[in-house]
Amino acid sequence: MRASDLTAYLDDCRRLAVEEIRAIVPRSGRCAPVLYDLMFEYPLRHAKALRPALCIATCRALGGRIESVLRSAAVLELYHNAFLIHDDVEDGSEKRRDGATLHRMHGVPIAVNVGDAMLALTLEPLLDNMRTLGIGKALRILQVIAHMARQSAEGQALELSWIRDGRWDLTESDYVRMVYKKTSWYTFITPMVIGAMVANTEGPRLVTLRKFASLLGIAFQMQDDILNLTAERARYGKEKDGDLWEGKHTLMLLHVMRSASRSERATAQEILRKPRPTNDTPRGVRRRNSGGYTAVSHLLSDLQRRGDLTRSGAQTIRAALRAPLPHADAGAKTRQEITFLLRLIDRYGSTPYAREVAQRWASRASKVLAEITAWMEPSVHRDFIAGLVDFVVRRDH
Amino acid sequence: MRASDLTAYLDDCRRLAVEEIRAIVPRSGRCAPVLYDLMFEYPLRHAKALRPALCIATCRALGGRIESVLRSAAVLELYHNAFLIHDDVEDGSEKRRDGATLHRMHGVPIAVNVGDAMLALTLEPLLDNMRTLGIGKALRILQVIAHMARQSAEGQALELSWIRDGRWDLTESDYVRMVYKKTSWYTFITPMVIGAMVANTEGPRLVTLRKFASLLGIAFQMQDDILNLTAERARYGKEKDGDLWEGKHTLMLLHVMRSASRSERATAQEILRKPRPTNDTPRGVRRRNSGGYTAVSHLLSDLQRRGDLTRSGAQTIRAALRAPLPHADAGAKTRQEITFLLRLIDRYGSTPYAREVAQRWASRASKVLAEITAWMEPSVHRDFIAGLVDFVVRRDH
Repeated sequence: MRASDLTAYLDDCRRLAVEEIRAIVPRSGRCAPVLYDLMFEYPLRHAKALRPALCIATCRALGGRIESVLRSAAVLELYHNAFLIHDDVEDGSEKRRDGATLHRMHGVPIAVNVGDAMLALTLEPLLDNMRTLGIGKALRILQVIAHMARQSAEGQALELSWIRDGRWDLTESDYVRMVYKKTSWYTFITPMVIGAMVANTEGPRLVTLRKFASLLGIAFQMQDDILNLTAERARYGKEKDGDLWEGKHTLMLLHVMRSASRSERATAQEILRKPRPTNDTPRGVRRRNSGGYTAVSHLLSDLQRRGDLTRSGAQTIRAALRAPLPHADAGAKTRQEITFLLRLIDRYGSTPYAREVAQRWASRASKVLAEITAWMEPSVHRDFIAGLVDFVVRRDH
Repeated sequence: MRASDLTAYLDDCRRLAVEEIRAIVPRSGRCAPVLYDLMFEYPLRHAKALRPALCIATCRALGGRIESVLRSAAVLELYHNAFLIHDDVEDGSEKRRDGATLHRMHGVPIAVNVGDAMLALTLEPLLDNMRTLGIGKALRILQVIAHMARQSAEGQALELSWIRDGRWDLTESDYVRMVYKKTSWYTFITPMVIGAMVANTEGPRLVTLRKFASLLGIAFQMQDDILNLTAERARYGKEKDGDLWEGKHTLMLLHVMRSASRSERATAQEILRKPRPTNDTPRGVRRRNSGGYTAVSHLLSDLQRRGDLTRSGAQTIRAALRAPLPHADAGAKTRQEITFLLRLIDRYGSTPYAREVAQRWASRASKVLAEITAWMEPSVHRDFIAGLVDFVVRRDH
């Protein structure tokens, strides 16, 4: 499948999913402006909607009907957007899909609550599946979702604990295990497994699909790490180099830690363990300092009048007071330090290395795909799934 | 039921619920220290565990078995503790049940993730109910929980939007509607309805129980508001006057707004609309300012040596620089302003007024209780439920 066809397939599925989300989320009442309306903030921004597309494609490629799978596909997108809101709060991110993050727009309290409410809203449509898919199937879907939520939280917990404890004594297989939990389960395994279940595919075929999804998810996350450093800002929509500011454990940084000299490694780890600067603008710092400046400035004029201070002395002090005062960000990472890390990544060829590794995982997925196409009938849906193997490692956003 | 018996009943149920939570939460593996172990932080602190007790008591008072209801009761406690973690993040609270809040101990990212994972963990035991209670009953319980989660999020959204928009043009019935959503559904209605369903009580009796629970929940929240101002610090476990600092809409403040003079009202609203100060200690502010102070202080010595500044002039400037500089909290509420609000509450008798209103709602609950005892057999469980009517408005923590 050509890249443009793949994008068109994604767009179609995204439209269907958003429409279905509109049917799930209440639209009126006094809670709409501070709760339900905000649930559409992220889904309506430019997004791939990979999860619903994968769920729909798997179901249809296996002969299932779109009506049977649409509700579950929309739930996956709702889940994903709820987690994005909480992730953005957790990471203190500023930008999401080319716009301000929800907590920057409405504050942390409202953002956390909107995320919780979105998670809560997923339950009713999944229970509704009992009517349309039968109890057994609906129940298995609920169990897959429950398992996915646990796996994602565990992956997230591993990553957060590594950051908190400043741990860099990690192997590539530690990284892969974390990514399998954090990304594969939630972005690939669950959508494909649910799509397959709705289309009555169980047993060894389901196991093979799961294996394919796991490998693809790992390659996808690796490319995500790479894009965070290399993507063109205009296409990317997220904060460039954000992973470095947040001290996240990427394939490139783990490679740097293995390749760098002892002293480079020590410096890099020291930088990565520092917190990221708060979201304070220079203007905010100036505004807060200006009160103190004004008070002391009046005092200087008094001292001048009394002859305790010369004019040039007053000028010198005023200039010193106008200089930025150290504030909460003392001890946080600086732009120079991020540049130091970027140079190490460059010097040791860690990005080409990561591309190679990502390609290796995509190739493994490709081999499993060959098994799948042995029993999955040819269709545009199968082409879309097959096209993802290249897409996950070639995409530029 | 005497207060001491009621407390003993609560304690018994709390022990059972915590034991059951231990069976739900995974205890080993590398995720335990940063995910699963943290889930016990709040449940193991001194807590009433009102929700599981109410669920168990209702089930048993109606002839249900404890084994049938225990899992659902534990899920309610797990849900509650997850929401507490997120609430504490949303409100920036420092203290919970006499200890530091989870995000103060482990940071916002880990705290939000632990809350999400706890919510995710509730799904599996509720699906498990299908095996033990049958599909119909398990499904209805899931639907009640889904509805509860929506109602709570809506109540929370209403309150947060009132705070964000600085709205005080609210009637007591606006307040009651918010509290019904925020507190009644989640602390009283859901536990009682689930307990009753497990014990095969449906139809008009269920409706009556729901009515009782709604009224009790409203009285409970009113007493919660009152305790936030009046409780002895040693017994309370939460931040005293926290509602005033957060600008929350309590019965007392709404009464003040109706009773105060126009200018008092204007001042009170202005105060309430200010943000609460950040959690910055005076020491932290000093430390951050000290860098600026040191730089300017050296400069003053230079100017003195050069004859641009007299000794007394330098002393005056140093003293001014040592004074606390305005920082992020400029424009936040001050202790004096909170005292101003407390004086208004005192002057207009708003706390006795709120006690009266809370008592009125408890009395309404009492009337509905009389209907219930007409068909609910006498038992220690029924006594516990009846005892709650007094308990909710008399408790001191």
